Amino acid sequence: MSNLAESQLSSEQLVDGVLLRAFRDEVRLPDGNTSVREWIDHPGASAIVPVLDDGRTLLVRQFRYPPRRTFLEVPAGKLDEPDEDPVEVAARELEEETGWRAERFEKIGAAHPCIGYSNEIIHVFAAHGLQPTEQDLAEGEFVEVVDLALDEAVRRARAGELNDMKTITALVYAAAHVNEQADAA
Amino acid sequence: MSNLAESQLSSEQLVDGVLLRAFRDEVRLPDGNTSVREWIDHPGASAIVPVLDDGRTLLVRQFRYPPRRTFLEVPAGKLDEPDEDPVEVAARELEEETGWRAERFEKIGAAHPCIGYSNEIIHVFAAHGLQPTEQDLAEGEFVEVVDLALDEAVRRARAGELNDMKTITALVYAAAHVNEQADAA
Repeated sequence: MSNLAESQLSSEQLVDGVLLRAFRDEVRLPDGNTSVREWIDHPGASAIVPVLDDGRTLLVRQFRYPPRRTFLEVPAGKLDEPDEDPVEVAARELEEETGWRAERFEKIGAAHPCIGYSNEIIHVFAAHGLQPTEQDLAEGEFVEVVDLALDEAVRRARAGELNDMKTITALVYAAAHVNEQADAA
Repeated sequence: MSNLAESQLSSEQLVDGVLLRAFRDEVRLPDGNTSVREWIDHPGASAIVPVLDDGRTLLVRQFRYPPRRTFLEVPAGKLDEPDEDPVEVAARELEEETGWRAERFEKIGAAHPCIGYSNEIIHVFAAHGLQPTEQDLAEGEFVEVVDLALDEAVRRARAGELNDMKTITALVYAAAHVNEQADAA
């Protein structure tokens, strides 16, 4: 493998917003030339696939303003700071968005949603030992909880019926995780 | 399903960059209150899973500046304009990035990488009838082509060994598509 890396020469902050932090960097390319990269600095996020004892999972329906439509998604949320423990974020977001608490979180993968213009990484957890508590949404958050069989959610993800990539990725990881558990049992 | 939609009250452009166009909008929430949404306006993209007659596929290895690492990815590229035909983008990007031309593209799905802060949609195509031509990279683009069995690429995506969500999504869609073709044969 040849060296493909680009190195930062300078960086200018374009936006320091409520949600978005955007930068424009000058970079050195592998061939020695320079170019410009514009990118979003993101603290990272956690996404959760609840694995209920009866085979169901929990998704959430939310309106997403940038694409201007609702999506059926796995519960997920941003880290408050880049050094926050992703499993704590998973526990908090699961309970706030769905009203269920988990006894145990298992890390089943991590992936980047948007490598062309964001450094975001999404940590994916399976949640086990689920008990109902109470949904506790932040102000301005509107979320409907939808429960369905995990198998059916995975089928929909593979069939192209869910259109959010973190949800597709998380459900594909969960299917592999559940199969591993079944193989080990 | 209750009405979860948010409506635009006003919009201010924060960045009009080389790559990024960012906006800050005031929105009306479902409960009548107002809030702020910051988002990236993106023209959309096409991603391609080449299906070679011998069972191989083609991935590309690229350094991605925002996460500061290399990824093994499906070939992909942005629409020049939001009304450009995604299949033309698929044909162009496949040939430029990999040096292979396809006789036939089949749309196998579409999904959003980053619904929290971007309106980007990625159209996913399977490419059939592949013939080698010549790689033709844009200035400042550094791409290594990697061929491997499509089955193995799908296995890696499911196992968490590829960490780019468009690549995971595209390979999962391709696996369903190839299975459908096998079932129909």
